Parts: sequence; structure tokens; C-alpha cells
Amino acid sequence: MTVSVEKPLLAALREALPDGAVLTADDQLDLHSRDSAPFGEAGRPLAVVRPGTVEQVREVIRAARAHGVPVVPQGARTGLAGAADAVDGCVVLSMVRMNRILEIDPANRLVRCEPGVVTADLAAAVAERGLCYPPDPASWEVCTIGGNIATGAGGLCCVKYGVTADYVLGLTVVLADGEVLRVGRRTVKGVAGYDLTRLFVGSEGTLGVIVEATLALRPPRPPARALLARFPSASDAGEAVAAIVRAGHVPSALELLDRTTTEAISALGHPLFADGGAATLIVASDAPDAAADVHAMAALCRDAKALSVTAAAGEEESAEVLEARRMVLPALKARAATLPGEVTAFIEDVAVPRDRLAELIDRIELIADEYGLYISTVGHAGDGNLHPTVVFDRSDPDAVRRAKEAYDAIMAAGLELGGTITGEHGVGTLKRDWLARELPPRSLRLQRDLKRLLDPEGLLNPGKVLA
Amino acid sequence: MTVSVEKPLLAALREALPDGAVLTADDQLDLHSRDSAPFGEAGRPLAVVRPGTVEQVREVIRAARAHGVPVVPQGARTGLAGAADAVDGCVVLSMVRMNRILEIDPANRLVRCEPGVVTADLAAAVAERGLCYPPDPASWEVCTIGGNIATGAGGLCCVKYGVTADYVLGLTVVLADGEVLRVGRRTVKGVAGYDLTRLFVGSEGTLGVIVEATLALRPPRPPARALLARFPSASDAGEAVAAIVRAGHVPSALELLDRTTTEAISALGHPLFADGGAATLIVASDAPDAAADVHAMAALCRDAKALSVTAAAGEEESAEVLEARRMVLPALKARAATLPGEVTAFIEDVAVPRDRLAELIDRIELIADEYGLYISTVGHAGDGNLHPTVVFDRSDPDAVRRAKEAYDAIMAAGLELGGTITGEHGVGTLKRDWLARELPPRSLRLQRDLKRLLDPEGLLNPGKVLA
Repeated sequence: MTVSVEKPLLAALREALPDGAVLTADDQLDLHSRDSAPFGEAGRPLAVVRPGTVEQVREVIRAARAHGVPVVPQGARTGLAGAADAVDGCVVLSMVRMNRILEIDPANRLVRCEPGVVTADLAAAVAERGLCYPPDPASWEVCTIGGNIATGAGGLCCVKYGVTADYVLGLTVVLADGEVLRVGRRTVKGVAGYDLTRLFVGSEGTLGVIVEATLALRPPRPPARALLARFPSASDAGEAVAAIVRAGHVPSALELLDRTTTEAISALGHPLFADGGAATLIVASDAPDAAADVHAMAALCRDAKALSVTAAAGEEESAEVLEARRMVLPALKARAATLPGEVTAFIEDVAVPRDRLAELIDRIELIADEYGLYISTVGHAGDGNLHPTVVFDRSDPDAVRRAKEAYDAIMAAGLELGGTITGEHGVGTLKRDWLARELPPRSLRLQRDLKRLLDPEGLLNPGKVLA
Repeated sequence: MTVSVEKPLLAALREALPDGAVLTADDQLDLHSRDSAPFGEAGRPLAVVRPGTVEQVREVIRAARAHGVPVVPQGARTGLAGAADAVDGCVVLSMVRMNRILEIDPANRLVRCEPGVVTADLAAAVAERGLCYPPDPASWEVCTIGGNIATGAGGLCCVKYGVTADYVLGLTVVLADGEVLRVGRRTVKGVAGYDLTRLFVGSEGTLGVIVEATLALRPPRPPARALLARFPSASDAGEAVAAIVRAGHVPSALELLDRTTTEAISALGHPLFADGGAATLIVASDAPDAAADVHAMAALCRDAKALSVTAAAGEEESAEVLEARRMVLPALKARAATLPGEVTAFIEDVAVPRDRLAELIDRIELIADEYGLYISTVGHAGDGNLHPTVVFDRSDPDAVRRAKEAYDAIMAAGLELGGTITGEHGVGTLKRDWLARELPPRSLRLQRDLKRLLDPEGLLNPGKVLA
């Protein structure tokens, strides 16, 4: 970046945005240079801008374009694939100030909001009106709706309630040329023309900047009942998952913890993990007959050789069981604290057909052995979506190398088992090369054609999703 | 079409396809010249081809392209918007022979099939394996999966189970250049790259020809309980719908019949319609506690001034209530039989936000009066999706003119109430001009750009969706 571009662009941005909305201090540039991916190729932004209106977003994009400078949209930077990492000399377009809920419409069960709304805030606001916004990515207490949509985020309850994409009725998007595009609808159904809404969901800010969303809501979820079952092996737990699916249950959570995770939580002295075992299943039901549903699923777990099954008797016990799922991160942090160096936990994301899950867990255990790594795997078993978490010392170049190689090996295993390189975290920069291995050439070409159609100059979040 | 094109193209098609797969007899050309839309601009095809393999589809597309001849894909021709109408001199690509179910995978709750499978056959085949494919367009006993996907078809149970689009996990598509594109996945979740699958759903054969689909399945639906309520006005019925939604019920069907329809069924002497009334609500629940659910919804209907409420006591009575919904077409046919001329019933499709439904029904009654037409309106009230059916004499030019004008007036009313010109029937040729009125200019431009990107020569189903 030469000064000849930098100065007039900053001047243009400062003119377009009110005081304090253009940040150039070092600490702000540092803070906004990367999301939560561990191996990013994050560059250094020229400036961070925090617009408050659609018009300001348009001005920023027009100004950046006029100077040939890339724009990187950002939400809460909780993404795990590098999609919100800055590129050198870019303008980071932080959407966090555009965080208004514009409308809650109970009669039509929908909400209209700006992209910077925190997911938990949206969920709380609609709950106050007797409605529910189900998508619950792990970072839901801090991540933003815009980021959820841009990455196509999932969560725990997808197994029953679907992913973020399933709730997006309509979007307002600022395009690379600064024009405003409205796609989708307010009606429940609609097939007027090609589905442009879904094109932007999961596009990671590479096709346009989401400035408003219309989201479908649901009636409130009934209280959940839960069970926790311990198994001698991941395969046995996998059998239980298969039996639950075959029997037609639709649990509201169906989480599998592998041996490493199970041991890490046991080590914290959690009472439900006292019985040993090599794999744990945590299952919830919020069906109207949840108690009976859980009872029946508990029996299926016993049939699948569970070492122990704890079916919660009431709401309080259910909360305790579900709390065990949230022990995963504290348990890994406790484990990390025992390791030397600058220890980091990197959460991977891969999805396979549901019936290949146990196989993938076994493969990941072998990969952990092969690369001498500590890998703890937790999975949305009902979706076939696994999150192997690699705990390693990022100050140790050899550990970093092994972690990266293991990451590649896990994705290769996922593809080999008929799966996808990402179930819910997205492609970003981390999986860009892998996308080219997953997609057939013609499909990849069409992806590139679409990017070129919507962003011919390649200034919107360049290098993300596609190389 | 000059002979110079016709002869070599027919020769190429006959070489590519086995005996009997290239039809040029007049009766076949007539039969395949139009779908079920009443005011189509149907042209006359040069030939109808019925390929049996993906390779044959590719050969047809390559041959047609080499001769600059358009290709119009067709399923069962049950579409109501003209999307499968032939254009003059085209090759009609009938997919009905590609009707194999390739795989049913209960462990992953999915089915893979060719596009020509009849929806009811698919539903029956997966039911035998203990699974359910919910989408139920009215023509489900004859329409094809490929047509359902191409039009983005809906149905009665969408209010609870979603539309066809929600079940499409992956597609294989032959593109305009004859290449094969695979999009989507077999996993429950997946966000690898832009969502190309949804781009083809509802694209009405204008972007590519669907040659294979991977569809999500569900556990079987429990038996439904139903209720039928009669109201003094559509507004009162609309109030009941709003109350049902507000109370958090998720019925598996929520159908509203207007005064004209109610009277037509009464005229057939149906016992449930003996009490008079100006609007009827038919509601079903297949919740695990269906009886209690129906009981609670019945109370809400009574609160909304229902003249009578019949809550079915068991499965048999429920079937009788739901049968009443299927009386709509026989009732209209009986009505048509009393009219002179070549009487036809044209089923329209418009969707509004759920809370504007009663208003739209009132507007349609006014439109019927204004144009002196018999219009019977039935709606998927839970979705805000109405089907006004115009019964008119198609041999009477003035009646045809009034029917067309009323059609326009209904769509204008739908848009005015914040709705869409099509909830589930699609655009085809009939709503092409209206699409340009519904979509903002930038969105329409992007639609055209996408068409050009995927079909630069404009040979795939030209004149459909976009002009």
C-alpha cells in the first residue's frame, strides 16, 4: 500500500463516517486483524471502520473500490476458518455497531434485524415475545447474526431445528459496486425467481455485505429432558446413535464425546463421568412427551452395550446432564494448563454421513497417535458433524507442523468417508485448498464464475472461500 | 424452423437415443406441447425425446445446442404456470423414463433417485423402509420429483414439514453446455462453498436439467387428528388462524376455504357442511399429543366466533374431516357442470404474510364481483398461501379476458399486501411479467446475469421465469 492510496482513502472514509467510526490505532488494527482461526494468514488492515447505517456501508465500499482497496467484513470474529481475517492494506468493515432489532412480528413469526445483533440478544428479545430463534452456535453468547449467516453457522440443536440457513427468509446486501440488493421475502413460502437468498448465506462476505436480515421464528421450545450414557467404545456409541435414528426419534441434541474428551471431563471429577468408559453420549429431547422419549432412547443405549445410562428424572437433573456437554472446553483448558508452552486448542469441523461417524472417530484417534497430538473429539452425532479439537503448543514449530498435518489428515478422512470438509464452520482461508479437493472441477468453476459475476474486481474479502 | 436444421437434428437425436425414445407423431407433439396452465403461449415442439440415462440427456443437449435449438425439460406436465410449455421448434426433453429410485439409506435418512420418479411412488417406497418423504403437492399422485424440484413445489403439510426445497440435499444437473454438475452433499450439514443446490431448486429447467436428486427423509408421521370449523366470515377464520399460531401450535395442515368453496361443498350435501357459514377451517395435528392439540385448537376456533366446530374423536373421523378438503375439486367440477360452454377451473397461487390472509380473501371476493367471475378460494392458511380458483368458459373470449384481468388483479393485491406472486406454483410464462414487478430492479438484473452465466446461448427453456 502506497501513501498515495492510503491518505485519500482515509480522508474519504473519515468524511463518510462520523467521529470514532474510523479506527487506525495500532491496538485496534491488531485486534481486528484476525478471527478465531489458529493458522490464519491474517494481514494488517489499513483501517477499521464501524458504520452505523446502510448508507455508510455503501460509502465505505464505494470509497474502497475507488481506491482499489479490498474490504473485509467482520462480526464478532468468533469464526474458526479465517473468513474474517484481515488482508494486508484492507479496510475492515466491522458490522458490530449495526445491532438493532428492527421488528419482531409474532403474527408472522419473523424478526428483522441488523447484522451486528448478538445471537443471544436476538434470542432473548424474541423469547420475550413468546417466540424462539433456535440456531445455537457454540459462540452464541457473543457471535453476531450477520456472522452466523455469512458462515452458515450450525449449533447443537440443528439435529432437530436445522441450521441458520433454514431461518433466513430474506436479506439486504450491499454489493461490490455499492448497490443495495434485496432478496427473499416476508412470506412463509415463495418461489418467485431464482433463490438468491441462499446464495449469500455461507458466502463469507465474498459476494456482498449483509446489512439486514429477515429471520423465521418458531414457537418456544418445551423444556428438554436429557440422558447421559457411557460406552466401552465410540463404535458402541455410534450403534446407539444409529438405533435412536432408526427408531424414529428426533432428539433436540445428540452429542458424542470421544475417549479423550470423556477422560478429560472425568479428570475434573464430574460425578456423571465416574464410571469410566471410552465414549459418552449426551441426548436431549424437547418433544411434548420428552420423559417417555428419553426413557425409550435410554433403553436403546442399554441395548447398545452402554456401561451406564443416566436418564434425568426432571428438569433440574436434565440441566446437569446438559451442563456436562459444556464441561468440554473447561476440561480441555484444564488439560492445556498441564502442558508447557503457549498452548492453544483448535476446534476442527468435519461432517460425514451419520453412519460413518464412529469410523471417523476411530480414524481421528489413529491420526492423534500418528502425529503425537492430543486430540479431543466432540460431535453433533445426530448430524454426523464432528469437532476434533487439537490441543498443541503454538510456540513449538514442530507441534504447529504436526497440528497442521493432522488437520489435513482429518479432512482427507472426512472426504474418504463420503463427507464434507466443513459442516458448519465454513471455508475461510484454512479450508480453501480443501474446497478444491471436495468439489468436482465443474462445480468449482461455477463457484468462481459466481464470485466473478458479483465481485468482478475481487475486492470483497479476497482470498476467502476461493483462492 | 427450416428443414436444414430439422433433418440433421432429428438424425442426431435418433442416433443418440434408442428406438422409441424420439417421438415426432402429431398426437405426441400435441400431448407434450403444454403443461396444466390455462393461458399458456405453448408452441409446437420439433420432437419429444425420452432419454433413459444421463449420457442420453447430455447427447440431446449437445445435439440441440449444435443446431441452435431450444430444449424444454418436462416432467408430468402438472405445472400450473406454463414452465413446461413447449416453445416452437424446440426439443421437449421428457424425463419420465428416468424414474428409478437408486438408493434408500435409512441410516442417513436419505433417498437418491432419478427425476422422473412419481412423488407418490417415492413416498410409498420410503414408507416401506419406515421413512417419510413429506412434501405433498396436490398432484403428488402423478407429478414427478424432478418437476417438484424444478418448480420448488409446496403442498398441504408444508405448514409443519416445509416445502420440497427443504428436502433437497444434492443434485446432479446437466448444464447447457452438456457438462455434468454435481452440487450439494449426502451429509446432514455442509457449508463447503456457495450453495449451488438451492440455485437450481425452483429454476424451472432454465439453468440446467436435473438428472438425479438426493433427498432428505424423516421418521414416519404419526396419525393425524383433525377438526373442521365453520365461521361467519373469512376474517373470523383468519382470527382463529392467528390465535392458533400465537398459541404456539404447529398443525400439520391448516386449510381455509372461503365462502364460495364452502357453499360449493355444502351444495354437494356434505354432512360436515350442513351448518352454513361463510368460511371453513380444516386443521390437522400429528403431534404426539394430537388429540389434546386438536382439542386446544378447537377451543381457539370457538373463541374466534366459530358457528360450529367438529373435533374428530378418532382416526376415522379425522380421515372424514380431511376428506372434506379433497371435496374442493369435485365440488368445483359439479359447479362447472352446471355452467354452459367449455368450462375450465384455473388454480391461481399467491402468498401473503400470514396475518394479511383474511384481507386477501376479502379482496378476491371483490375482484370476483368486479369481473363477474366465479372464484373459489382455498388456502394453506398457516403459510399465508392462497389458491383462488377461477371457473370460467374458455370458449368465451370475454370470459377469458375477464379471467386474465382478474388474475392480474389478484397478483396486484398479493403484492400490495406485502406478499409474493407465487408461493409454490412458480413463474413459468404466466407470471414472468409479474416477476419483474415483484423483484427490485437490481435483483432482477442479478437473476438475468445468473441465467446468462449458466445458459449464455439461452437455449434452456427460453422465455420461462425471465423474459
